[in-house]
Amino acid sequence: MVGFRLIPKEYRFFDLFNKEAENVYFAAKYFNELVTAGSFNEDTVAKMHRLEREGDIITHEISDMLNKTFITPFDREDIFLLSNNLDNVIDAIDAITKRMGLYKLTTPDSYMKQFAVVIEQSCSALCDAVKHLDNTKNRTRVDEYCLEINRLENVADQLRENSIAELFEKVKDPIIIIKWKEMYETAEATVDSCEHAAKTIQSILVKQG
Amino acid sequence: MVGFRLIPKEYRFFDLFNKEAENVYFAAKYFNELVTAGSFNEDTVAKMHRLEREGDIITHEISDMLNKTFITPFDREDIFLLSNNLDNVIDAIDAITKRMGLYKLTTPDSYMKQFAVVIEQSCSALCDAVKHLDNTKNRTRVDEYCLEINRLENVADQLRENSIAELFEKVKDPIIIIKWKEMYETAEATVDSCEHAAKTIQSILVKQG
Amino acid sequence: MVGFRLIPKEYRFFDLFNKEAENVYFAAKYFNELVTAGSFNEDTVAKMHRLEREGDIITHEISDMLNKTFITPFDREDIFLLSNNLDNVIDAIDAITKRMGLYKLTTPDSYMKQFAVVIEQSCSALCDAVKHLDNTKNRTRVDEYCLEINRLENVADQLRENSIAELFEKVKDPIIIIKWKEMYETAEATVDSCEHAAKTIQSILVKQG
Repeated sequence: MVGFRLIPKEYRFFDLFNKEAENVYFAAKYFNELVTAGSFNEDTVAKMHRLEREGDIITHEISDMLNKTFITPFDREDIFLLSNNLDNVIDAIDAITKRMGLYKLTTPDSYMKQFAVVIEQSCSALCDAVKHLDNTKNRTRVDEYCLEINRLENVADQLRENSIAELFEKVKDPIIIIKWKEMYETAEATVDSCEHAAKTIQSILVKQG
Repeated sequence: MVGFRLIPKEYRFFDLFNKEAENVYFAAKYFNELVTAGSFNEDTVAKMHRLEREGDIITHEISDMLNKTFITPFDREDIFLLSNNLDNVIDAIDAITKRMGLYKLTTPDSYMKQFAVVIEQSCSALCDAVKHLDNTKNRTRVDEYCLEINRLENVADQLRENSIAELFEKVKDPIIIIKWKEMYETAEATVDSCEHAAKTIQSILVKQG
Repeated sequence: MVGFRLIPKEYRFFDLFNKEAENVYFAAKYFNELVTAGSFNEDTVAKMHRLEREGDIITHEISDMLNKTFITPFDREDIFLLSNNLDNVIDAIDAITKRMGLYKLTTPDSYMKQFAVVIEQSCSALCDAVKHLDNTKNRTRVDEYCLEINRLENVADQLRENSIAELFEKVKDPIIIIKWKEMYETAEATVDSCEHAAKTIQSILVKQG
């Protein structure tokens, strides 16, 4: 089985989606490095923000291409939505990086390290799902990547529960609690944004029947 | 008037939606019982989580059926969306239950009791709306259930305002404030997730023109 | 070029959308006035809530018209969605007004004043975008208003970063931190809700190809 083949112009959308998804994955990988090294400073925060701007440019290219192309590989509004969903993931990673710098949380604890791993894994699966969208014969595989993202979202949920429980047990300074609680919640919301993109991908598959 | 009749296979979707919505309602009812009894312990939290897993299985069954069925009672992506919206409601109820246990808030105050009632009522209306989706002649009735959910969302909004106002007035310990504030906000967000599902239902009706 | 002309009945939808968007803008303008004057009292909070109720009525009129009209200027579900998105903006403005009153934050600081300006600008651009939806020849212009809303959302993001950074630096009382942090976050979320409506508008344009 070869699956449904696309006409050349449509491939351009997948090229752009791949570029956008790879950029998201690259940001997630970089975030994990920063967390491991505990180096949230002006330079690293600025470098992450450049990745986020790069993502904006790709999102914009996809919008532009939509406006110039009549035939699209899937519904026009879904192309727009998926592109925006991917953009939301990198926005979330950029936001958490900025906040780590802002709060001067330069010594990420073991929970944040676990979150960073889950974020990277989740973005990696998302990148793989996007990469295989270009051929309908990959459908089962794309679905598996989406299920993996769902699974990682449950892991992130549990991490949030455990990290916040421990926070209230061990820390007595309310200001420290406020800061770390927000970081754990934002980390979990980042994985949520991956799941959101995965739901859009699943919805696109579902439409194809 | 008999309304539009469906072919047998399509009924299976409604059976699954009913099963999913009833499970949501059952969880809401159980949450209300827990709040009334103030019994958030390992056993009750685990029992709620089993209901949430049950919901996941039904959501999965709906996805599977979508992949195997060509003709669907309404747009494929809306079936996927509504099923996910219902899943979000039970996820929210499960999350609030876990958090009550985590924070050891075993003596829910009068506001949480009122929230639990509103959550149960809202899930009950949602369950009724879903139950009547199988025949277009029930349209007005479905719409009324959705309006009732909108109304309850306003009630929850007001409860949130009042509960948080009183919290800041009466409590001076910031750590207690952080915990209860989050519970009130999460309770309100649970009712929001019901409204979200109701909006999807209304959007499905709107599409039918 | 005259663009695509609409049939009379369809104009009614645009009249209602304009009415709804103008009401949103009016609320944003009023919020800015309240912030400038620092007058969040029972009367002003009640006046804002009346605007929010006015918005509910218009949303309801749009739903009613949808149920009575066969031919619509764009997809029925998008009319429903955009109307709900506009409603979410005024809900957010009403919520923040209530909360300012509740927390007795009658002396808004310079950050809240900047947020109020951005909210007003954002609602003004949203109102302009909606106003030009009635003729496809305005497409580029509508797109520009949406891009302006995206830009303002980035401004709001930065405001949130700066305001929260300064809050933790200058304030030592955790209860004051909790209150103002929530206000800044809610202000930013209000601009987010404008961006959400803008995305729906862009998605409608994208569908038209």
